[in-house]
Amino acid sequence: MADPKFFTKAGPFTLAQLAKISDAVISGPIVPETMYSDVAPLDTAVSHHVSFLDNTRYTDAFRVSRAGVCIIRPEYADTAPAGMALLTTPDPYRAYAKAATAFYPLPMASGEISPAAQIDDSAEIGEGTEIAAGAVISARAKIGARCRIGENSVIGSGVILGDHGSVGACASLAYCEIGARVLIYPGVRIGQDGFGFAPGAEGHLKVPQLGRVIIGDDVEIGANSTIDRGSGPDTIIGSGVRIDNLVQIGHNVQIGQGCILVSQVGVSGSTEIGDFAVLAGQVGVAGHLKIGAGAKIAAQGGAIQDVPPGAEVGGTPTVPVRQWLRTAAYMNKLMKKKGK
Amino acid sequence: MADPKFFTKAGPFTLAQLAKISDAVISGPIVPETMYSDVAPLDTAVSHHVSFLDNTRYTDAFRVSRAGVCIIRPEYADTAPAGMALLTTPDPYRAYAKAATAFYPLPMASGEISPAAQIDDSAEIGEGTEIAAGAVISARAKIGARCRIGENSVIGSGVILGDHGSVGACASLAYCEIGARVLIYPGVRIGQDGFGFAPGAEGHLKVPQLGRVIIGDDVEIGANSTIDRGSGPDTIIGSGVRIDNLVQIGHNVQIGQGCILVSQVGVSGSTEIGDFAVLAGQVGVAGHLKIGAGAKIAAQGGAIQDVPPGAEVGGTPTVPVRQWLRTAAYMNKLMKKKGK
Amino acid sequence: MADPKFFTKAGPFTLAQLAKISDAVISGPIVPETMYSDVAPLDTAVSHHVSFLDNTRYTDAFRVSRAGVCIIRPEYADTAPAGMALLTTPDPYRAYAKAATAFYPLPMASGEISPAAQIDDSAEIGEGTEIAAGAVISARAKIGARCRIGENSVIGSGVILGDHGSVGACASLAYCEIGARVLIYPGVRIGQDGFGFAPGAEGHLKVPQLGRVIIGDDVEIGANSTIDRGSGPDTIIGSGVRIDNLVQIGHNVQIGQGCILVSQVGVSGSTEIGDFAVLAGQVGVAGHLKIGAGAKIAAQGGAIQDVPPGAEVGGTPTVPVRQWLRTAAYMNKLMKKKGK
Repeated sequence: MADPKFFTKAGPFTLAQLAKISDAVISGPIVPETMYSDVAPLDTAVSHHVSFLDNTRYTDAFRVSRAGVCIIRPEYADTAPAGMALLTTPDPYRAYAKAATAFYPLPMASGEISPAAQIDDSAEIGEGTEIAAGAVISARAKIGARCRIGENSVIGSGVILGDHGSVGACASLAYCEIGARVLIYPGVRIGQDGFGFAPGAEGHLKVPQLGRVIIGDDVEIGANSTIDRGSGPDTIIGSGVRIDNLVQIGHNVQIGQGCILVSQVGVSGSTEIGDFAVLAGQVGVAGHLKIGAGAKIAAQGGAIQDVPPGAEVGGTPTVPVRQWLRTAAYMNKLMKKKGK
Repeated sequence: MADPKFFTKAGPFTLAQLAKISDAVISGPIVPETMYSDVAPLDTAVSHHVSFLDNTRYTDAFRVSRAGVCIIRPEYADTAPAGMALLTTPDPYRAYAKAATAFYPLPMASGEISPAAQIDDSAEIGEGTEIAAGAVISARAKIGARCRIGENSVIGSGVILGDHGSVGACASLAYCEIGARVLIYPGVRIGQDGFGFAPGAEGHLKVPQLGRVIIGDDVEIGANSTIDRGSGPDTIIGSGVRIDNLVQIGHNVQIGQGCILVSQVGVSGSTEIGDFAVLAGQVGVAGHLKIGAGAKIAAQGGAIQDVPPGAEVGGTPTVPVRQWLRTAAYMNKLMKKKGK
Repeated sequence: MADPKFFTKAGPFTLAQLAKISDAVISGPIVPETMYSDVAPLDTAVSHHVSFLDNTRYTDAFRVSRAGVCIIRPEYADTAPAGMALLTTPDPYRAYAKAATAFYPLPMASGEISPAAQIDDSAEIGEGTEIAAGAVISARAKIGARCRIGENSVIGSGVILGDHGSVGACASLAYCEIGARVLIYPGVRIGQDGFGFAPGAEGHLKVPQLGRVIIGDDVEIGANSTIDRGSGPDTIIGSGVRIDNLVQIGHNVQIGQGCILVSQVGVSGSTEIGDFAVLAGQVGVAGHLKIGAGAKIAAQGGAIQDVPPGAEVGGTPTVPVRQWLRTAAYMNKLMKKKGK
């Protein structure tokens, strides 16, 4: 299914193996020794494929799918096509993620160090780490074990990168300490000076940026995103955070664990974002604010005041998301009426 | 006119040649053998220059312009200054593009391969292709003929790039197949993992991204834009699409032919955009939507529902663009009244 | 205070020296020969530290701070904790910037040229300039004295960079002339083709982009920002301008002196921005507009008409900023009333 030019497939796996891998329960009278060789979407899957149903918008596709086995919530078992094996679980997408990763494991570090990489003698490189052509590893950098350092990337002086990290092509890291299993995509910029200056008619005066960027474990940072280092305090990204492409994180920002920042979000300096908050695409947050844990800001929202924990807000300036949508509906109706 | 430090000029051309090049009609009693040596804007052009009038905001500049020849719509011929040669056409900007390209042709591939490029033995490089210093061409990549591969760019394993392609400095391509005559600007990121994970309080779980990026012919992709590869299906960019700088295209997005995406647009995963749709600057489109062929979304608009073919919309959430502007005018008036 | 892995500290300095450095006045009965060894925020500073109070949100922290010396406005002298030395000035943040720069000077060019840089024989490199591994300096480029050219950056043919310039890792410069003391952050793209084409159903036709990018002195350009070259006229950035990360500047844009463009701002082609204008985060400005000197556009604002000099506007389309906020408050109240 996945283009073999780009992807290497593992497997096949038996239904029993898949149940174990995906932490799901085999449902129905199917033979656990049946072999499955790939994953596929509901509409293109055939008998040796594993598929899944998570989004209810695809229940029709599920009813007619020819997938050999499908990962579903137990309550959909009754609507399965005849002959389809089922793996039931309360979280089919998560179970699918595990099954798909079994077929297509994340690329492993080859341990190869390109002769066309530039590695300072004082840098420490962990066991099994791979360093591609054109990468520059500066003085006193410490790269953990089994990392993958991409082509033409730049690791600045003193930077620390934990085990199993990945740095994409053409990314640059400076003034930062990064935990384990962090995936940094191509073109990411970490640790450059924050936007700090004393403004004045005689010329804006640069303020030294004396902090670092501290990143936890299991973080992903999308392509061409930028994270400035702190001005004195550090900029902090908690463990498990997911940052999409082209996101901007200002100096001194603190992002709690498990937060999700969708593409093109901008977070201004010194703002704190609580654990598991979600900022949808193109959201902007002003500086020195507190976005509470679990808060959600709808796409393009602009927060210029604190957002309480758990609140769901939208619009610019942000209001509760239901109010934002009701306001839009009200104005829509009003203008249509006036249009008559 | 153009700085000779940066640009190499061809020509001069006779009026007759220019008429042929630009597919326009010579108007008036002018000698077709007159030579013209350059292009210039209306206000700075002199007798040996070619200029053009397209935007009516410049009709005053046209009336007093000293350009030797001007490309215009036939209906403006009467207002031309005395002695100015005219080339008439229904589409002066397009005719000017052709004339200007004759004077300043796109840079050609030199065919030179820098000894400071890193090219895998298994890569295939087409005839006449130029590869600059620091470029990295990975295993089994196939680069077409007469391409220009920029400094410190990275072409990933198995990537296919068609003839006459151009890859800007520091751009990176992976998991993609690209047609002919595609111009990729500096810092572009193509083919990295999409933003796919199964969220959960115990940690978000990465979902393997098993698709590719498929790009048609004659596409341009602006500086530092990012195009994620599909999660299973491919991300698809149709022929003739123009993408400006800092644009984000999520996984599985399908963009039809000839679409225009202005700077800082963001398109979320699995959305389909019909042929010749126009997304103005900073527009955001939510995931799993259909934007119809020929639809236009005004700058900063946020689409959270489908947009019908040919519709012109604006605002967040989007409404018909006239309604959006009327709403703004109404609120403006209302608040001014209340302000008294 | 600042991590010695990343920062090298100068000093210590006496109170008298600090007063001179920061152009502030010693206040109180303190011995001018006391030595101070570092800067620190109010809440963590101790007796040998220099701190400052600028933002009134920190007056409580000031009252209990243990900083040895604090830079403040004269009117706050009365509220200082006992024993704290004071340096008074009308602009504490600016004075702090000077003191902090004394302790932590900007990195100096080492004068070292990496053997792993690729420098064309026809390029001119000024005295004391440092060129890092992987940097590519193209034909006829002129780099001033004491510049710092970062790892894997690319300086295109004929580019001019003034003295004391800095080009970050993986940045690329083309078709541009840049003044003195300009700091270009990692991943910046300067001088690529503008977004210029003649649209048409038979295919959009590229229009040659024949201008340059001209940048004054003392400019900073944030990470991954993009500045397109002019289409015929030049794109011009005045002296003293501060551009944050991920900002887009279209072709032919003219930005006056001392302007501030916060992260993710987009300025469309041919717009002129007057001296010392401020565009807050994610602001968008349409093409061919005039934003007057000293104008301010609030975050996420969208200007589709000219903004007069000195005006403060917000919203999309922009209205006076007070009206924008009043409108939001009015709608908020209205919807809450209707919600009952």
